[in-house]
Amino acid sequence: MMAFDTIVKGGMIVTAADRYIADIGIKDGRITALAAELSGADELIDASGLLVLPGGIDSHVHLSQPSSDASVMADDFESGTRSAAAGGTTTVLAFALQKKGQSLREAVAEYHAQADGKCHVDVSFHLIISDPTPQVLGQELPALIEAGYSSFKVFMTYDDLVLNDRQLLEVFAVAGAHGATVMVHAEGYDAIRFLSEKLEREGHVAPYYHALSRPEIVEREATHRAISHAEITGIPIVIVHVSGREALEQIRWARARGLKVSAETCPQYITLTADDLRDLNMGFEGAKYVCSPPPRDAESQAAIWQGLVDGTLELFSSDHCPFFFQDEDGRGKDTPKARTSFRWVPNGIPGVETRLAILFSEGVSKGRISLEKFVALTATNHARTYGLYPRKGTIAVGSDADLVLWDPNRKETIRQETLHHGSDYTPWEGFEVTGWPIATMLRGSVVMENGQVLNRPGNGHYLTRYTSSAQATANVDWSKALSADTNQSSITG
Amino acid sequence: MMAFDTIVKGGMIVTAADRYIADIGIKDGRITALAAELSGADELIDASGLLVLPGGIDSHVHLSQPSSDASVMADDFESGTRSAAAGGTTTVLAFALQKKGQSLREAVAEYHAQADGKCHVDVSFHLIISDPTPQVLGQELPALIEAGYSSFKVFMTYDDLVLNDRQLLEVFAVAGAHGATVMVHAEGYDAIRFLSEKLEREGHVAPYYHALSRPEIVEREATHRAISHAEITGIPIVIVHVSGREALEQIRWARARGLKVSAETCPQYITLTADDLRDLNMGFEGAKYVCSPPPRDAESQAAIWQGLVDGTLELFSSDHCPFFFQDEDGRGKDTPKARTSFRWVPNGIPGVETRLAILFSEGVSKGRISLEKFVALTATNHARTYGLYPRKGTIAVGSDADLVLWDPNRKETIRQETLHHGSDYTPWEGFEVTGWPIATMLRGSVVMENGQVLNRPGNGHYLTRYTSSAQATANVDWSKALSADTNQSSITG
Amino acid sequence: MMAFDTIVKGGMIVTAADRYIADIGIKDGRITALAAELSGADELIDASGLLVLPGGIDSHVHLSQPSSDASVMADDFESGTRSAAAGGTTTVLAFALQKKGQSLREAVAEYHAQADGKCHVDVSFHLIISDPTPQVLGQELPALIEAGYSSFKVFMTYDDLVLNDRQLLEVFAVAGAHGATVMVHAEGYDAIRFLSEKLEREGHVAPYYHALSRPEIVEREATHRAISHAEITGIPIVIVHVSGREALEQIRWARARGLKVSAETCPQYITLTADDLRDLNMGFEGAKYVCSPPPRDAESQAAIWQGLVDGTLELFSSDHCPFFFQDEDGRGKDTPKARTSFRWVPNGIPGVETRLAILFSEGVSKGRISLEKFVALTATNHARTYGLYPRKGTIAVGSDADLVLWDPNRKETIRQETLHHGSDYTPWEGFEVTGWPIATMLRGSVVMENGQVLNRPGNGHYLTRYTSSAQATANVDWSKALSADTNQSSITG
Amino acid sequence: MMAFDTIVKGGMIVTAADRYIADIGIKDGRITALAAELSGADELIDASGLLVLPGGIDSHVHLSQPSSDASVMADDFESGTRSAAAGGTTTVLAFALQKKGQSLREAVAEYHAQADGKCHVDVSFHLIISDPTPQVLGQELPALIEAGYSSFKVFMTYDDLVLNDRQLLEVFAVAGAHGATVMVHAEGYDAIRFLSEKLEREGHVAPYYHALSRPEIVEREATHRAISHAEITGIPIVIVHVSGREALEQIRWARARGLKVSAETCPQYITLTADDLRDLNMGFEGAKYVCSPPPRDAESQAAIWQGLVDGTLELFSSDHCPFFFQDEDGRGKDTPKARTSFRWVPNGIPGVETRLAILFSEGVSKGRISLEKFVALTATNHARTYGLYPRKGTIAVGSDADLVLWDPNRKETIRQETLHHGSDYTPWEGFEVTGWPIATMLRGSVVMENGQVLNRPGNGHYLTRYTSSAQATANVDWSKALSADTNQSSITG
Repeated sequence: MMAFDTIVKGGMIVTAADRYIADIGIKDGRITALAAELSGADELIDASGLLVLPGGIDSHVHLSQPSSDASVMADDFESGTRSAAAGGTTTVLAFALQKKGQSLREAVAEYHAQADGKCHVDVSFHLIISDPTPQVLGQELPALIEAGYSSFKVFMTYDDLVLNDRQLLEVFAVAGAHGATVMVHAEGYDAIRFLSEKLEREGHVAPYYHALSRPEIVEREATHRAISHAEITGIPIVIVHVSGREALEQIRWARARGLKVSAETCPQYITLTADDLRDLNMGFEGAKYVCSPPPRDAESQAAIWQGLVDGTLELFSSDHCPFFFQDEDGRGKDTPKARTSFRWVPNGIPGVETRLAILFSEGVSKGRISLEKFVALTATNHARTYGLYPRKGTIAVGSDADLVLWDPNRKETIRQETLHHGSDYTPWEGFEVTGWPIATMLRGSVVMENGQVLNRPGNGHYLTRYTSSAQATANVDWSKALSADTNQSSITG
Repeated sequence: MMAFDTIVKGGMIVTAADRYIADIGIKDGRITALAAELSGADELIDASGLLVLPGGIDSHVHLSQPSSDASVMADDFESGTRSAAAGGTTTVLAFALQKKGQSLREAVAEYHAQADGKCHVDVSFHLIISDPTPQVLGQELPALIEAGYSSFKVFMTYDDLVLNDRQLLEVFAVAGAHGATVMVHAEGYDAIRFLSEKLEREGHVAPYYHALSRPEIVEREATHRAISHAEITGIPIVIVHVSGREALEQIRWARARGLKVSAETCPQYITLTADDLRDLNMGFEGAKYVCSPPPRDAESQAAIWQGLVDGTLELFSSDHCPFFFQDEDGRGKDTPKARTSFRWVPNGIPGVETRLAILFSEGVSKGRISLEKFVALTATNHARTYGLYPRKGTIAVGSDADLVLWDPNRKETIRQETLHHGSDYTPWEGFEVTGWPIATMLRGSVVMENGQVLNRPGNGHYLTRYTSSAQATANVDWSKALSADTNQSSITG
Repeated sequence: MMAFDTIVKGGMIVTAADRYIADIGIKDGRITALAAELSGADELIDASGLLVLPGGIDSHVHLSQPSSDASVMADDFESGTRSAAAGGTTTVLAFALQKKGQSLREAVAEYHAQADGKCHVDVSFHLIISDPTPQVLGQELPALIEAGYSSFKVFMTYDDLVLNDRQLLEVFAVAGAHGATVMVHAEGYDAIRFLSEKLEREGHVAPYYHALSRPEIVEREATHRAISHAEITGIPIVIVHVSGREALEQIRWARARGLKVSAETCPQYITLTADDLRDLNMGFEGAKYVCSPPPRDAESQAAIWQGLVDGTLELFSSDHCPFFFQDEDGRGKDTPKARTSFRWVPNGIPGVETRLAILFSEGVSKGRISLEKFVALTATNHARTYGLYPRKGTIAVGSDADLVLWDPNRKETIRQETLHHGSDYTPWEGFEVTGWPIATMLRGSVVMENGQVLNRPGNGHYLTRYTSSAQATANVDWSKALSADTNQSSITG
Repeated sequence: MMAFDTIVKGGMIVTAADRYIADIGIKDGRITALAAELSGADELIDASGLLVLPGGIDSHVHLSQPSSDASVMADDFESGTRSAAAGGTTTVLAFALQKKGQSLREAVAEYHAQADGKCHVDVSFHLIISDPTPQVLGQELPALIEAGYSSFKVFMTYDDLVLNDRQLLEVFAVAGAHGATVMVHAEGYDAIRFLSEKLEREGHVAPYYHALSRPEIVEREATHRAISHAEITGIPIVIVHVSGREALEQIRWARARGLKVSAETCPQYITLTADDLRDLNMGFEGAKYVCSPPPRDAESQAAIWQGLVDGTLELFSSDHCPFFFQDEDGRGKDTPKARTSFRWVPNGIPGVETRLAILFSEGVSKGRISLEKFVALTATNHARTYGLYPRKGTIAVGSDADLVLWDPNRKETIRQETLHHGSDYTPWEGFEVTGWPIATMLRGSVVMENGQVLNRPGNGHYLTRYTSSAQATANVDWSKALSADTNQSSITG
């Protein structure tokens, strides 16, 4: 006989491999039973006629990050995770950004301070390495990896973040030695600077020229370079936010050669194009779509879809990086300085809340990808890549009861007025979707229902994570594998 | 409250996406519960310390087929499915071969007659189309597809089976119109004949020359041709038994272009090479390894592994095609005629029983692929490709309780004397493996335990199958999808 | 001191590698001197301000061939070679077509009978093998190769000409054994038949559907197949009239692998598209552009140019295959039968006269290719590929004085009324070009001047040719190489 | 009537396109006649039985360059050009290297001072840009290009020379604006440093580890990066000294996309391998083969040959960069410091004298390439690429009478004792060749005969050169083209 806290009844459960109708029994925040029929719970949730999906994992979310030039990020951990919960996402991987000159430990502590007690969903931090000093490489990084900060991101562009090739190689080598996972923002700094200055000299300063200042070649070259560095150091890497078909070809080429290159794309690269950055009325509306890499063209969109279909792209994240468009304090995208050049428009768009609906609608509802692929792209693959599996990313006995109840037939129109993020706009204003999250459950508790985020900030926990080498061991070492669900990623409340 | 016929306790369940420790509750042959702890069954099976995998599906098995030249197949449906059960395989997709001049209906009836009451595991038939007359194309084939014979195989070589390009295109078009799945044996008939006769003229007649009579180019060209015909007719195809890196490159090229080309490989292409066909003592031992396409070289083996890892190859079958080596009635590979030329050595090797152990040992135990990939390659992908999912191919509520209890640490040496097939030899004599099936369950009943096949022939059922178009519909039509497990593939006892 | 019959003074000589201003001294039909200044000749030709190019070699010209279905070819050897001379071409490689059942010797004799005493320029025959009987393969072909018929063409389509794969392999093997060069018409017969019948069933019978009945896939597949057969037999091949980017990619792929695959394209594939086959007035004008392979689209045109620029395409021929559009005897393209289906429209267009002007204008004048590349594509490479070099194809001491005086600045509009071929139309009616032949010289004699063809038929000679193996030998065997110009291709008057 | 200073009689003339036996008439240092028979000269040179080739052009020669670390270059302009003349090379493109902080004008003046009156053959300078200041980019470089220094080289590695990506882009942009040609040394600095330090930390310091410190990936990545920068700036580039198959693939990929990427290889990459750097007796002999990029393996050698055959590689230079092995003043490769690490072994090997013989023997004599290809690779393509054509690089009326009389059958063994360079060793000691230069003529004068360099230093002239844009113009502007030989590259004595 069993007893459950909650039973989710009659929904169609979908995982990265399977779909079937069953009841889900939840006890102490975890899934303890999946069965044709369950009873004996305090609470019954009727999911009949709905899909029950693993809660979304968004592994690429920027929250509370300082931005150059005094503009502030439109979301802190409270509003950002509230927006995530509203959109069906139950785990957010945000970033702890090391400022130049800062110690990594300090950076991590700073972000913990900002996140602590604020989160509506579970969170974890990737580290951003901007200053790989010997101290960072030799001591801080290994210790933090060991402590469950098992992934970090490096940038090949941006004044404050760019690492040179030598630094990339050093960071990659540390990742390899300690089993951490490296995410790469692959755009070439020097080429962007060269083109930006050229465009400015020619008087091309409108937001649209942001797209022309970082064409596909720039992304392709940096992608090839990052892959080469990974090959030299013998590590797997993740190329994040792949936008263009040329970069995609490099990734496909690398994988066919047996290199371990994972790749991520985002909603903007399957729904927006560079033309969205043009404002035909000579205004500044295009700034709403300024992100990096920039959206491309229809041909690249088709290539990105092909990459999602054939498995070249395994991760679908938001790259949520929210700014105000017109903040009353003048901290948004539309500032006097930004109007002098695209170069001063903050790079980034909000998207953590709309990610699942856009992919479901454009992918599943339009017949491009299966339900199972949707789950893999939005949850399971993130958990596997970043050391959260099997606690997160699936619906299985022993896993956290992070669930989304999804109505595949519900038609909605995306509107800023109904979103929960901090930004004052959404790039998808008026975008129509089929398929919508009805309720979100975090470790067995309903945190969103019918668009209302219910719980109080602080319910979200911080997650430490596996290293990839630990996962690799689990794959072959059976004594460990057979107890894998017990000593996995832990929660530190 | 629930009651079960059987509970499998404490094993680590593995699906194509997940692994977790749970009890499995079985009722009326189906899985009805997966839970941290279950009780209340007539029978308890202790799986602690073991993996519990979906029963293997072998979608490429030749049984009771007539062979040219009076040699007989070494397995009928009884011995073949017994061998499958022994190796952990619970569903066998065999072939109903149309002889030239024969009606398809007649062929199907003939094979049903042979299989009826004989099978130890569930079976279904692919049709082999050797004579695509207007009657076959216009009436028989559509009717049989409708009746659940939703896949067929065509050959680009073999005297009795080869279809010319026009015939291939006609068959492909019918498949497209009715949602059937086409399997292609891609080797070019004319080139093989040309090379075989040349070798014979030169006096090169030993079994080894079988490999030289059908080099990689021959497979690559036919693969390209089949892909082109599929592109012209707009259908998905399955290239079976891919052996060489050149053919693999064609498949990868096609997929990167967005064509729906699936591909299968077999144990022989990751463990044997053409050198195994050489008998350095000038004897005839090499004939034991004669199959088509022939095993290649180390470079192709590496390419095939890479294809398994990166998803280019989605199916791992045996291409079980068993002959005697030295039958006392002179019907085996080693006949006076076969000794006059490799051309008369029957093409095919036994392998339905050793398939899982070889892939597990070489793949999972050696760290090349994950457990989940193993399940996908040996069970789930077969069920999806050929219209058996979700009844078969996974461990989920509602699915048939077809299970293998697998000891990942058990070391065994493959020996003919312990196998259950009809052949008098195995090409893997002395091959050492880590990982071995301890027990096989078919729809809830144990059919093999510790190498003993327990049940009586006849317990295996015939399965009708979905068409791929029906599956595509299920993916997007939610009213159907939500009841998918009820009107799926049916069993006709 | 020397004496010359003729001196061509002051032109800019262009070869496949060089350009320089010099006088050309001619004696007994051959070039005997190239110098800054020459004197002492009976005849002076002033070429100042003009280019002096090697006479064009058109290695793909159909003359006096029987056509299926009672339509006759619009050019015999007299009118065809007159047209060639008018366009600046001094050597024509026509075809001696073996009819099924006919001996090769007989076919050759038939074409000699037709050509004898009729030709305005030098000619030689490629053999078309349509019936590779053992007699043909074992005796006739080797003997004819030995006799200087060192190249032959095979077809992968056309009812009367198609060879199956086995026949192709047999013919290739003979070519390899005897050093002959094989030209392949690469389009797949079965696919074309399949698509044509489908289009007809759907009522799509206008000339435009000719293009849809043989899409790029059909050409690509046959190209891959031909390359594979060549790889199996170890021979070099020439893929003629490459029209599409997909076929081109196959050729590039093969060459990067080290295979000896040469390729030819034609004016129609850089200037016409499938849209030219559409007649928007619902008439039959599109039939004027029906040839095989059909013209493609702008993307393929760009790819073909790229192939010419980067050396993938080495030969630029006309594939002159002239028919009447509306012959008064009803033998043209526009017949009642042809109006019932594109299938009955004779395949082929005239072009021997306009080939050089089109490539010069579109290639050299528009800056796509250099003058030297123009010479290589229109003359030198043909001579080298088909065993006529160094007698033909260049301007060098010892070579035949076959020259074109070319005005690079002259603008002309192509008009049927000024052409010399037998057809009643040109597909390039109204096409404007920059660059035009002012005079043509054959072995030292002017045969065309200002559009007037001067000499009498019969001045053109028949040329026997080297085998490719003889050329290969000449390349490394220095005793032979040093006397190469004396025992090269001979002229049989 | 003509009068000649010299007549070269009866040789087989070879150009990049043609071969024929003729006499060559020379007047005032230029070729004025090519004819079956010439007479009337002061001097007759009998070339019967020999090949007469255009004098070799070596476009990659380091002379009198300062080297890091006090080691000196083993050749100055006198000994280097003497060595060139001895080997059949009549034009040497050396480098004028800008030191950091130095003005370009100053660097050029410095090298003129070193070359003036010292040269046995004609020379010209590529500029090496190591310090692209605004002054250099905005003023000096454009002025020097205008003055005939129409090419420059940039380095992606070496402490004293490396440019970062921004600098590369700036230099490329200037090249594009002024029609100069850019040569790129494509190896990635940071990766080399990273790997070198790693090897040193591991105690791997022998010369062999030089090869491991700059593996193929390093060359491939830099090649891809250089191509990308060229694509961004829209310029053609020359990738020099391509050594590995991976870099070659990048070049082939770029060219198939229509990018203008030329590429050069060198004798070391077709004859040496990394194993030559190993000294099995634990000595230091391997240092003799230290050059950058390092020799690779047999597979790369095969790929390089394939690139030469199919035209991907258009230039064959020596990259002559001579050092002493054991100089008595301790300035050679074998110094105490160099023995502490491969990093201190001077990078470079001598080869200007042996370049032609090695390619002829390995290429022409072994049947891999034709005579005409040999001429193109060793002379004509250099002249075209670097603005010397038609004065240099061919045998044509109006061109300089720079000739090599070549005995294709002569067998020689390369020995240090018979070479003329300044180094104290040759990497090809004992290498056997078939084919050897018998005499070298510079502008009509014999400068080498039977191994004896005859003339006095100072006969060699400095050559100013065309820009590539001037050549492009000449190709389409006929009024210029027709007088191209008069206003071409000029000689400033």
